Amino acid sequence: MTPAQQQLVDTILERFGPKTVTTDPHAIEPWESDWRGRYHGRAPALLSPGSTEEVAAIVRLAGELGVRIVPQGGNTGMVGGATPPEDGSALLLSTRRMNHIRSVDTVGNLAVVEAGVILANFHDAMAEQGRRFPLTLGAKGSATIGGLVSTNAGGTQVLRFGNMRHLVAGVEAVLPDGSIHEGLVPLKKDNRGYDLTQLLIGAEGTIGIVTAATLRLYPAIVERAAAWVGVADPEDALRILRLMEARTATIESFEIIPGEILGHVLHHIPGTRSPLAGEHAWHVLIESVATEPGAEPPAALLERLLVPVFEAGLAEDAVISTSEAQVEAFWHIRDSISEAERALGPAMQHDISVPVDKMPRFMLAAAAEAERRFPGTRATAFGHLGDGNVHFHVRAPQGADRDAWYAGDGPAVSRLVYDMVVAEGGSISAEHGIGQMKRAELERLSPPSRIAALKAIKSALDPRGILNPGKLVALAPDADTP
Amino acid sequence: MTPAQQQLVDTILERFGPKTVTTDPHAIEPWESDWRGRYHGRAPALLSPGSTEEVAAIVRLAGELGVRIVPQGGNTGMVGGATPPEDGSALLLSTRRMNHIRSVDTVGNLAVVEAGVILANFHDAMAEQGRRFPLTLGAKGSATIGGLVSTNAGGTQVLRFGNMRHLVAGVEAVLPDGSIHEGLVPLKKDNRGYDLTQLLIGAEGTIGIVTAATLRLYPAIVERAAAWVGVADPEDALRILRLMEARTATIESFEIIPGEILGHVLHHIPGTRSPLAGEHAWHVLIESVATEPGAEPPAALLERLLVPVFEAGLAEDAVISTSEAQVEAFWHIRDSISEAERALGPAMQHDISVPVDKMPRFMLAAAAEAERRFPGTRATAFGHLGDGNVHFHVRAPQGADRDAWYAGDGPAVSRLVYDMVVAEGGSISAEHGIGQMKRAELERLSPPSRIAALKAIKSALDPRGILNPGKLVALAPDADTP
Repeated sequence: MTPAQQQLVDTILERFGPKTVTTDPHAIEPWESDWRGRYHGRAPALLSPGSTEEVAAIVRLAGELGVRIVPQGGNTGMVGGATPPEDGSALLLSTRRMNHIRSVDTVGNLAVVEAGVILANFHDAMAEQGRRFPLTLGAKGSATIGGLVSTNAGGTQVLRFGNMRHLVAGVEAVLPDGSIHEGLVPLKKDNRGYDLTQLLIGAEGTIGIVTAATLRLYPAIVERAAAWVGVADPEDALRILRLMEARTATIESFEIIPGEILGHVLHHIPGTRSPLAGEHAWHVLIESVATEPGAEPPAALLERLLVPVFEAGLAEDAVISTSEAQVEAFWHIRDSISEAERALGPAMQHDISVPVDKMPRFMLAAAAEAERRFPGTRATAFGHLGDGNVHFHVRAPQGADRDAWYAGDGPAVSRLVYDMVVAEGGSISAEHGIGQMKRAELERLSPPSRIAALKAIKSALDPRGILNPGKLVALAPDADTP
Repeated sequence: MTPAQQQLVDTILERFGPKTVTTDPHAIEPWESDWRGRYHGRAPALLSPGSTEEVAAIVRLAGELGVRIVPQGGNTGMVGGATPPEDGSALLLSTRRMNHIRSVDTVGNLAVVEAGVILANFHDAMAEQGRRFPLTLGAKGSATIGGLVSTNAGGTQVLRFGNMRHLVAGVEAVLPDGSIHEGLVPLKKDNRGYDLTQLLIGAEGTIGIVTAATLRLYPAIVERAAAWVGVADPEDALRILRLMEARTATIESFEIIPGEILGHVLHHIPGTRSPLAGEHAWHVLIESVATEPGAEPPAALLERLLVPVFEAGLAEDAVISTSEAQVEAFWHIRDSISEAERALGPAMQHDISVPVDKMPRFMLAAAAEAERRFPGTRATAFGHLGDGNVHFHVRAPQGADRDAWYAGDGPAVSRLVYDMVVAEGGSISAEHGIGQMKRAELERLSPPSRIAALKAIKSALDPRGILNPGKLVALAPDADTP
């Protein structure tokens, strides 16, 4: 620990007590690596403030002492964005003790939620009030509100509700100078200059630590249903979506799965069985919900919506769930894809987006090109077709040495995928952010003026480089590269 | 004209021809004042680039020469945000020649529109394709897309569709270094660092000149209807809105009008007549639309929604339009308020917002307080109750000298109103922005750390202070105060 770090730790201990700081390596160790074990760092202390005021005091003092801070929520990120640098030059600041739902307004449908509240707990609390917070994702049992805001999280319900940015009505954050950005008041109209709240959403904790957010609530789901549809290709899948969207606003999810991937799930995941009897090149999982008693039941709606789909020859076969258990069974298949894929050996995974209309063609063309350029590889894409966002995976050739592939062809495959994405005007990070994993690729694939603008914003708001060093943008190699 | 300005003008003339620049005072004069005649400036030249590339070249050259530029669209702003400084230190750059709709995608419901396209023209072009761009406002015959994006415009349909920010899927802009921010590609998910597109929306041309935007389209309106409801007070009005919102998503507008104001409209505006037979303290105008053939007719829907409203004792009387002409007649009353008020003598007008739930109480309490503190004045509020945004007007005492009141008590009244707004966590600029009119009040009423953050962003992205000097934030009194 540096003298400055020690001074910060001592001051925090004195002012806020032992709950707010620990230097016990066993207590810190679980938070020094990301959950997938890909990034490993070291933090001499773990700070756990219990209030926004404590966060502000810590950041102000850190700024004065020149001590760097890595903010962390549930530590469920995919790009190493919450992992401290390896050299011990930064302390971890966990928001997990700030876990109160400050207020719930079931008339205005808004809740003020502290950064450390776990998403699943928030879901449960809102369900008790007949309300729903629609954003959800696999890590909901650990992911916190602060991290979800700071990464502008996506998930499975973006098609209807948008990503986190669309669900945030206000943000409270501690800025790098230790001041508090008090943006929780939910104003529907507010034009008072640059929108700092929008700027903090998705900023990955590099220009402020989100301490609370005002979140939009929706009516609880009364009933849901899902359709599983076999289709010939992604173009037909997208046509089905367009046809349905023109007739209803209740489509919540529209997920595409290649037949090959379905086969792997059925083979590797116990208890799964194919929703359709026959073989299909592609499958689509469509969910619709009702939120009002007396509204058209979602199963009936899906049945009605499928009539013109079959009339247009867009579907080969389809089945509609007849129970909540069957909806769960369909989703279990979708949610098991990652696990099934792990059984197939090393793979490079890419969280990418292109404009929705371009995605069907991109999925096929990019997979073919990746397999052509890297013989023996197998490229597949699945996921949120309706968002123009798929998980694009390229598996190593059978029998390839794991470490050698991850060190050699793997990164080359990724560069190819990202090049193809950029050529379509797409994004090399649709959901997961940049963190440390994609910083070099962001710099390689962005116009220099854009990188210059990002760096200008970072250094304007955090001139001493106190917050989350080495993530998103690097100001200078010696200043904040871990 | 300074030598640097002259050099810029000469170079533009040589490179892009006489269409792109004029120094003719008669051609420039109409654009040197705002449309209400409150702000007057002077620009030695008016630049009218015809393409994004020309804008980029001009800004790059301006940066090299240290020449300041004031971007301008339709010049319909309310806060002097597009008026050049009085000392002739900046040139005007009009986007009005960039008036092409680059593309329309009626499947994905997106249009790419250049900055100079006039809103009403865009409405008409979309109507021809069976589509609707829902944002609309009084100045639609002159206001341009670039200005609407740069001011994050509001208008009458925000309740359902949000403000401009929610309708923008992408932005192209020229940054102060002359580089082009290419953000038109409509990605539903994109987490590649600080969101420059969000930052440019509402930035009032101070950190970039918006040259085009990708805008979201909606189905055209098949049929609309309006209800005019007499209520006892704003609290009951808001209860009506909540009750309706829980039963339908088709409420487009929910406007509140005091009975006194209605009386002035009926008295001063020829051809208007009261929708209801009796007297009511407050009136509400509610619009609902159908966008699908075969959907429940909006008049029938409104009738159905009013049943529980009357059962709950929230409405005193109501009438539902029986024709499009009657809908127009209702709106004509609402849209004539400003004209009717002008007949009543000098008034301070305030474009303010507070959280929706606080607005009913605020309207009454703030009006009472203003009248108490400034005896003889009359304070009234009307407008977008559903957005928490009203036009809060305070009229001078009868017989007050116009000039003396505008110089003396008028500004004191405004400071009181803004103080009350801030005490409720509200915004002193809900729709109109800061421009030059509200810059001092923004600085007075914001935490110093917020002003510091705004200035840091401005100077990070526009270190030479090239774009729209003196608007929104002032970097230094000698540097950019007009």
